Amino acid sequence: MDFKLLNTDKNSKARCGRIKTDHGELITPVFMPVGTAGTVKAVHQPELINDTKAQIILGNTYHLYLRPGTEIIKLAGGLHKFINWKGPLLTDSGGYQVFSLAANRKLIEEGAKFSSHIDGSKHLFTPENVVDIQRVIGADIIMAFDECTPYPCDQKNAEKSMMLTHRWLERCANRFNNSEPLYGHRQNFFPIVQGSVYNDLRKVSAEYIASMDMDGNAIGGLSVGEPAEDMYSMIETVNNILPEEKPRYLMGVGTPVNILESISLGVDMFDCVMPTRNGRNGMLFTSKGIINIKNQKWQDDFSPIDSEGTSFVDSQYTKAYLRHLMQSNERLGGQIASLHNLRFYTWLMEEARERISRGVFDSWKNKMVKQLGVRL
Amino acid sequence: MDFKLLNTDKNSKARCGRIKTDHGELITPVFMPVGTAGTVKAVHQPELINDTKAQIILGNTYHLYLRPGTEIIKLAGGLHKFINWKGPLLTDSGGYQVFSLAANRKLIEEGAKFSSHIDGSKHLFTPENVVDIQRVIGADIIMAFDECTPYPCDQKNAEKSMMLTHRWLERCANRFNNSEPLYGHRQNFFPIVQGSVYNDLRKVSAEYIASMDMDGNAIGGLSVGEPAEDMYSMIETVNNILPEEKPRYLMGVGTPVNILESISLGVDMFDCVMPTRNGRNGMLFTSKGIINIKNQKWQDDFSPIDSEGTSFVDSQYTKAYLRHLMQSNERLGGQIASLHNLRFYTWLMEEARERISRGVFDSWKNKMVKQLGVRL
Repeated sequence: MDFKLLNTDKNSKARCGRIKTDHGELITPVFMPVGTAGTVKAVHQPELINDTKAQIILGNTYHLYLRPGTEIIKLAGGLHKFINWKGPLLTDSGGYQVFSLAANRKLIEEGAKFSSHIDGSKHLFTPENVVDIQRVIGADIIMAFDECTPYPCDQKNAEKSMMLTHRWLERCANRFNNSEPLYGHRQNFFPIVQGSVYNDLRKVSAEYIASMDMDGNAIGGLSVGEPAEDMYSMIETVNNILPEEKPRYLMGVGTPVNILESISLGVDMFDCVMPTRNGRNGMLFTSKGIINIKNQKWQDDFSPIDSEGTSFVDSQYTKAYLRHLMQSNERLGGQIASLHNLRFYTWLMEEARERISRGVFDSWKNKMVKQLGVRL
Repeated sequence: MDFKLLNTDKNSKARCGRIKTDHGELITPVFMPVGTAGTVKAVHQPELINDTKAQIILGNTYHLYLRPGTEIIKLAGGLHKFINWKGPLLTDSGGYQVFSLAANRKLIEEGAKFSSHIDGSKHLFTPENVVDIQRVIGADIIMAFDECTPYPCDQKNAEKSMMLTHRWLERCANRFNNSEPLYGHRQNFFPIVQGSVYNDLRKVSAEYIASMDMDGNAIGGLSVGEPAEDMYSMIETVNNILPEEKPRYLMGVGTPVNILESISLGVDMFDCVMPTRNGRNGMLFTSKGIINIKNQKWQDDFSPIDSEGTSFVDSQYTKAYLRHLMQSNERLGGQIASLHNLRFYTWLMEEARERISRGVFDSWKNKMVKQLGVRL
């Protein structure tokens, strides 16, 4: 994959880069909105581009495999066409969802057996068929099939799990290297570092993953319940090993503070359901801190949702109105909060990139993390 | 109210007119999207204007009175400001909702007692306080408090109910004439014809309502379960009596066919939850007929939602994708269907107006009603 480092920060490992895909360029650090079942929940595709300024979105292999299924996606000519998204697309491998959503899951060397959370039907994901499914989906970046170690997990089991992920990775990479994209555009492959919260396991895993020499590298198994300090420690360990000349993707993380701290440790790519999921529940992230819009204190606050926000919803609607919509379970409430939060996340990345390019990221980050966590 | 008849059809009673309000003009026949609790469900205010081309929207007094309540609306400076809608606004009187949604409702001469469907709290709507509430909401057109007769209803009870509605009307009109708008813009008052499916009652009611000489006139108590032929017969009877020089509003109606037939009988204004409510359940209205997008037949139909549709969603998304969203209970599905259906309704009104202005409405209407009801 074509990745170019553009700038690095002076006092941290933060970096700014450019990834080229056949569906366009990304400037990193980048936040990728999660489009689980082929839709970033409650957001129109034109809004993703024009309002949230998303550069790339995610799809979930587990969800898409179950519904609409690979047959429909293949007939459509891939997920880009099915959902009419012309930009870059990344799919996860389904491993995390099998272990968090599916029923009757059973891990065997061959792969993971599970029953669909939708209709109870039985399925088997293997490293090979998960690559095949992602070929059918046609994402620009596809992920290795891994076991996302739960937290807490003792070191022996964490090691066992990591070794399985490594064996699965070899099978994934084989399948990837011996298969072709279906729709004429290049697909890139990222393996995933595991190892729970154990520095020595993370080292072993990062070295193994780096040795695969794939298009980019991901860090998995974090933000699953461990203290933030453990997460940052693991990222630091891993990023000392993962090659600088390839993008680093921290999966499923996190709060705005988590993301800024991880950028300072050299992470380039992020995804998280937080801006949309928490938004639908009334939590708004702003540059001044966090708002729970359901609180009664907002009921007669007729100021804009976020006077410094850059989404159209920020000035279009007031806090009192958004609170009313949330209290009334009106769909528009979730739509507004999702747009606001997604745009806040992408705005935060733009600000981070600008500070990195000027070499002043670290001090800006230290100031921001104090504000971003405040409860307003 | 400033109402001007612009054109009348040659072979029907269809007419095209212009209503001026302090929040802008409406060209009739007009369809008014329903914004129950201060939001047209799942649709952004800018989308209402730019995409659905709505000229006016509705609010429900019952819902707004319960949540957010008149205190908040008054502090906001009225509903226009609270929801940031700059165009014309109409509020119903809450009568219909008291009888269809509230619990423990009891009709007395003074008004209607009921318990909130939200928290069980007890309330009393009277002709006077319903006018007061609508003054606080600040709609451009406000409605009389009526009893919407259920269907079926024997003639004796229908007459009793109608007489109560007439007595309530007098009290409403008194309050309206002896109170002032709160926000500096003119509010117009429409009384409502009742009388169930009885021609002689409808005549009595229409004559009484016409004699009140208010800003416009409404027809209520229809589309509540009676055969369509009965509804059309009542509209014909009533419209022979209601003055031509005032707008006529048929409340809560209906399907595209119902609306075209009613336009041909001289109705000018319509509202209905059908485009949004049925849309959220997967029913799409198109110029070729009705689509149930949940049907399996659409699962691999990658053609646009409506190749002749004029909403951005019609060409942005395919039938197969919309079906997938609906099957997956994804919010975007309801958003897309609501936009499509609302724009279809307003487009149908535009087409009707164009045919009326050319004096060819009747033949066009007869052709359209054959198509519009087809199940695709």
